Amino acid sequence: MLPVRFSSSFDGWMLRKMLSAIGPAPIRLILEGSSGLASPGAAPVATIVIRDRATLLRILLDADVGLGDGYADGGIEVDGDLVTAIEAIYRSWPPGGGSGSKLWSRCRKHFRANTPRRSRDNVHHHYDLRTDFYQRWLDSQMVYTCAYFPTPATTLEEAQLAKMDHVCRKLQLQPGETVVEAGCGWGALALHMARYFGVCVKAFNLSHEQIVFARQRARLDGLSQRVEFIEDDYRNISSRCDAFVSVGMLEHVGLSQYAELGRVIHSSIGPSGRGLLHFIGRNYPAPLSAWIRRRIFPGAYPPTLREAMEILEPWDFSVCDVENLRLHYAKTLEHWLARFERSSQQLSEMFDARFVRVWRLYLAGSLVAFRVGTMQLFQITFAGAQCRRIPWTRAHLYQVKRPQAQEPSCTNVMS
Amino acid sequence: MLPVRFSSSFDGWMLRKMLSAIGPAPIRLILEGSSGLASPGAAPVATIVIRDRATLLRILLDADVGLGDGYADGGIEVDGDLVTAIEAIYRSWPPGGGSGSKLWSRCRKHFRANTPRRSRDNVHHHYDLRTDFYQRWLDSQMVYTCAYFPTPATTLEEAQLAKMDHVCRKLQLQPGETVVEAGCGWGALALHMARYFGVCVKAFNLSHEQIVFARQRARLDGLSQRVEFIEDDYRNISSRCDAFVSVGMLEHVGLSQYAELGRVIHSSIGPSGRGLLHFIGRNYPAPLSAWIRRRIFPGAYPPTLREAMEILEPWDFSVCDVENLRLHYAKTLEHWLARFERSSQQLSEMFDARFVRVWRLYLAGSLVAFRVGTMQLFQITFAGAQCRRIPWTRAHLYQVKRPQAQEPSCTNVMS
Repeated sequence: MLPVRFSSSFDGWMLRKMLSAIGPAPIRLILEGSSGLASPGAAPVATIVIRDRATLLRILLDADVGLGDGYADGGIEVDGDLVTAIEAIYRSWPPGGGSGSKLWSRCRKHFRANTPRRSRDNVHHHYDLRTDFYQRWLDSQMVYTCAYFPTPATTLEEAQLAKMDHVCRKLQLQPGETVVEAGCGWGALALHMARYFGVCVKAFNLSHEQIVFARQRARLDGLSQRVEFIEDDYRNISSRCDAFVSVGMLEHVGLSQYAELGRVIHSSIGPSGRGLLHFIGRNYPAPLSAWIRRRIFPGAYPPTLREAMEILEPWDFSVCDVENLRLHYAKTLEHWLARFERSSQQLSEMFDARFVRVWRLYLAGSLVAFRVGTMQLFQITFAGAQCRRIPWTRAHLYQVKRPQAQEPSCTNVMS
Repeated sequence: MLPVRFSSSFDGWMLRKMLSAIGPAPIRLILEGSSGLASPGAAPVATIVIRDRATLLRILLDADVGLGDGYADGGIEVDGDLVTAIEAIYRSWPPGGGSGSKLWSRCRKHFRANTPRRSRDNVHHHYDLRTDFYQRWLDSQMVYTCAYFPTPATTLEEAQLAKMDHVCRKLQLQPGETVVEAGCGWGALALHMARYFGVCVKAFNLSHEQIVFARQRARLDGLSQRVEFIEDDYRNISSRCDAFVSVGMLEHVGLSQYAELGRVIHSSIGPSGRGLLHFIGRNYPAPLSAWIRRRIFPGAYPPTLREAMEILEPWDFSVCDVENLRLHYAKTLEHWLARFERSSQQLSEMFDARFVRVWRLYLAGSLVAFRVGTMQLFQITFAGAQCRRIPWTRAHLYQVKRPQAQEPSCTNVMS
């Protein structure tokens, strides 16, 4: 980098530009060794310290990536609580929607499609990290999706079990039935469904690391006869089943593949089955932040409910129930972030300081996004037009306890 | 009509055409004084008797209107249970969706828009019928929308009260809050909200008959200070309020006005309020039957969830909850039809035989449409991006009893 020397008034101009870019949040900005600036109004809840002019310039050229990479590289420090600082910024933004949503709708077609090859690369980027990394901060069942907290005081361990029960009850799983799961992570839900609800499961995932781990679990748990873990793309699913479930995969599918996903679901459950999609969504169409797409989730896109309907509508599926669990995802992320921080020293040794800072920012930013409503978490329960197992009310979701572990009532004879 | 004489083989050809038009249902068709025909396969569950060739010809030229008007005029009789016959036909149809839905999407723009003037005419056609007609077969609260049956054995009276409670709980109404209701019928929900949940309500309706009735009820119930009934179009709502609710109006709004409805909702509740839309919907886009549009509900269109999202998405509203109550609407219609039949003699005297047959066919056809899933009933609960009253879970909907009637805690001071 050229040793350009900026005048102090230029520093001030840049800080003012940055402050106006992040909105009227109660945040103090400091360029280390130079000037400081704060929004007029409420007392600052945190101070963002920018270590050098190069970082400040990167932020001004590309706020999203500049802030993310700046924090990752240590060019930005937050004096105060990171979550509090991000939340103050998010809450200062004006409500979204309106014309912007139309603009994004028009440009959606230009987004790169997640072909099977690209999906494999995207999955590898995130989910093929060492399993012992995720074990440091996920629950003991290794569930890397939004939990369900019957009360805010529920523990993360209990909340992940409660989430899996909630999903199984919504699907009304019965012993002996067959289930296809698309995007099964380390296998927790597939094994839970088999163990407690007596179903046979074919569970698909593109992540080699996760599939290896899941198969080993199935063997250790004595469930290999009832749960088959398959390292393959959801587009290659051809099994017939009673219920289709996908928890945390749709965000990675991409709009251009929704018609294909709908076809896969319909070929699995036909007109008489039922299904559940659990996914991160939006109130109005917008891409993920450029930094998240570059560093965390390449190819990811959280759809609106309207967009998600493009999967179900062409096949005469009835939407039975939609639940928005965004506050539960904020709570889940609070637990993950706290566990992550408790392990941060070890994680720095396993990886490096930059890796830890990238993940800290991602977890903290996601927590805030769900807390303030920039992101939503939808669970859609749906049924084929001829499904006979539509519950009379939803009261059954709130009145039962977890069933006892089931004796095998099906063997893995799914076609 | 010219005295054309058809040969018997021509009668047979027409019956075969009609049988193929209604699908492979277990129905026998008879042209009175001529030939009869039944689908091969299952034993017929009912016989449709066509009294003359003119009726048969009308059906072949326009199945929808020909069947509806033919039944209304007495040119068609059903030997057997009317609901059973219609259900057999509906169930024989192939699943919908697919390319047809795209076709309809393309032609939606050519649908006539429901301008304020046209909306008034449409409402007048259906809802300005004599109130004592509806009193013959609705519940005592005069609720002309889908009820909520905690169990299938719940009475209609209880189920309509339970529906109103269900709506109020979803909205989390608190004493002293203000509510705008768009499309209030005879005022049952507005009065229920005020009486049991202590809110002040401004309730809008274009039907003069209904508004007059509702105002009288409010006076008799001593609730005129808390519930104001306003004879006006939803597009003219300008009140600020804590919650917006509309039960059974969206079907009459028409797709072209969804942007305007969204604007009205947002101007009422802003970014911090919440709302509920209860409406008849579809799994995939399709117009109502031509006969229903002509004889029963001019200008009506039941949207898909995707289409309904066009109201909420531009304003950054979060969908909190969607519940599909189609089986409850089938049950509601069972009650209405049974009550209607018990009053049919008196109704024939109040109106005439044709009027009774039109309404019988409409009620029976609607019952079947909800029972088999041609129609859905959606309740969407939503909240502004800054709403602070989002329930932690939905368990509260299933754990409480109806509150006691409230003392006035607000006077009608809505702006």
